[in-house]
Amino acid sequence: MLQGHQSWIFNSKPTILASAAVGGPFEANGALADDFDILHEDLWLGQDSYEKAEKVLLEHACERAIKKSSIKKEDINFFLSGDLMNQIISSSFTARTLGIPFLGLFGACSSSMESLSLAAQLIESKCAKYVLAAASSHNAAAEKQFRYPTEYGVQKPPTAQWTVTGAGAAVLGEQGDGPKITSATIGRVIDMGISDPSNLGAAMAPAAVDTIEAHFRDLNIDASYYDLIATGDLGKVGHELANSLLKTHGIEMPRDIFTDCGLLIYKKDQPVFSGGSGCGCSATVTYGHFLNRMRRGELKRILVVATGALMSPISYQQKESIPCIAHAVSIEM
Amino acid sequence: MLQGHQSWIFNSKPTILASAAVGGPFEANGALADDFDILHEDLWLGQDSYEKAEKVLLEHACERAIKKSSIKKEDINFFLSGDLMNQIISSSFTARTLGIPFLGLFGACSSSMESLSLAAQLIESKCAKYVLAAASSHNAAAEKQFRYPTEYGVQKPPTAQWTVTGAGAAVLGEQGDGPKITSATIGRVIDMGISDPSNLGAAMAPAAVDTIEAHFRDLNIDASYYDLIATGDLGKVGHELANSLLKTHGIEMPRDIFTDCGLLIYKKDQPVFSGGSGCGCSATVTYGHFLNRMRRGELKRILVVATGALMSPISYQQKESIPCIAHAVSIEM
Repeated sequence: MLQGHQSWIFNSKPTILASAAVGGPFEANGALADDFDILHEDLWLGQDSYEKAEKVLLEHACERAIKKSSIKKEDINFFLSGDLMNQIISSSFTARTLGIPFLGLFGACSSSMESLSLAAQLIESKCAKYVLAAASSHNAAAEKQFRYPTEYGVQKPPTAQWTVTGAGAAVLGEQGDGPKITSATIGRVIDMGISDPSNLGAAMAPAAVDTIEAHFRDLNIDASYYDLIATGDLGKVGHELANSLLKTHGIEMPRDIFTDCGLLIYKKDQPVFSGGSGCGCSATVTYGHFLNRMRRGELKRILVVATGALMSPISYQQKESIPCIAHAVSIEM
Repeated sequence: MLQGHQSWIFNSKPTILASAAVGGPFEANGALADDFDILHEDLWLGQDSYEKAEKVLLEHACERAIKKSSIKKEDINFFLSGDLMNQIISSSFTARTLGIPFLGLFGACSSSMESLSLAAQLIESKCAKYVLAAASSHNAAAEKQFRYPTEYGVQKPPTAQWTVTGAGAAVLGEQGDGPKITSATIGRVIDMGISDPSNLGAAMAPAAVDTIEAHFRDLNIDASYYDLIATGDLGKVGHELANSLLKTHGIEMPRDIFTDCGLLIYKKDQPVFSGGSGCGCSATVTYGHFLNRMRRGELKRILVVATGALMSPISYQQKESIPCIAHAVSIEM
């Protein structure tokens, strides 16, 4: 049910029956490699295009999550997914493979938590028995579409981020063993006038802070409720900015519980500039690393605040600034 | 609540408190001009790009629907919208203008009914008091992105369709006067192997038939329940194909109640090939023409089955066929 202006409380506590994370070669050499279900050494995944490779990543994540859940594919009512590709072709073509009724979403890198929050909402309201939620991104497919083909070898500034090659998926059900979704906050678009697509972390930080503030206000809680609060892909630059914005807004946020998926996924010596990004970043870190830590009892309550930059190459060329958004999902063990 | 495998029954009957349709010059000369709230003589809407013009169309539709509803913008919990532009920038930038918490959707031309069905679902489940649902398209922006800039004057085959320059929006609430949303059916992706983007009507017809069949099966009704059943944008070619597919599937569909928004919106002498298309087609025909007819008492029960072709220029270049989908929403007076 609605809580406050823009949050949902899930009294029935929809369960994540199973989740899966699939990654590419960069993620295989990253800090969270052990938390991936499948790691591909080949950036092409045996396909003849990066776009097709991303589709295969997402198919693998969905198929693995379904298999782990022991739910029959035919019993899943809806597939909710989004990605960064124009016309979300990774999600749409995966929906074709799966044959599950499909709701396509786009929230850029926030698509991971947009799909998870709506999936939980459908279970809570008895509008679905089982839902599959997913999101994906592919480094080379995203570079080619949003910036330059990687073969050009274009230099990047240190504020740039590294799009994760990965896909995450989760099967949700009304009851069962596993982490529970307890609430979600849907973000509004915030645009502070930043127009540099090589500094998306800074552009997205205000949206993350706005959603965290709304979440605390709507639920009448503060940061102490959680063991861990993670933004999606702010990276180093955006994370520091978020910390100082939270302070400006008078929101107490202990440094030791506040992190960012883009800061966790790679090792310090990997050349990822300001950190990881992409729908696949928050999706794989949440559906792999965080949920594994919850299942091991290391974390009890987490809030994942996936951030998204809603620009396109056309809006950038037309001198528009970058509208950003963040959606937050609360998961408890 | 869930009904059958892929449908929702809305027992609380969420109300369309107000709706608005905005169109361009081609629509102003069309068959349904009287049903538009605003018609622009200038395809550019005073902007310096077609993309910005589409955003203004959508902003106008949203602002007009909100004004007609007498609901304060600040009281609307969520804005659900989709469009055809890469990264749905028309919707995202309109969400920035509105400042309402935003769920971005992509179902190509089916986005109109994807947003309406989810909006009704959020009201039904008490996860929102008021929701704004919308969709848009712009002829020249879509031609430029999916095919060729219109300035090239590329010739088209008779199976091609004419993307509607238009936006439609609706404000939904728990109760009040106006047409009620009574059920919705979420489609699955159907791909019969058609790969010609100049024949989308034929590609989408099987998806429309699949969703109509699922709707009748899940709700245990047949076509006689409705005064009118309209697909989104199959056009002449797709409509004929849908008629014959329905026959093959043993589904009785009286010719006099089965129509298509793309067949209704333009006059016979307008050079629109097989008919209208785009998110704006089903959105403006539904939120303008159909709802006006319902409010006048001419129609009691209608089913709008918005169809979408989930391809991208990249998937076409990579020799993929076209995955299609259709979402159906039942509206009763």
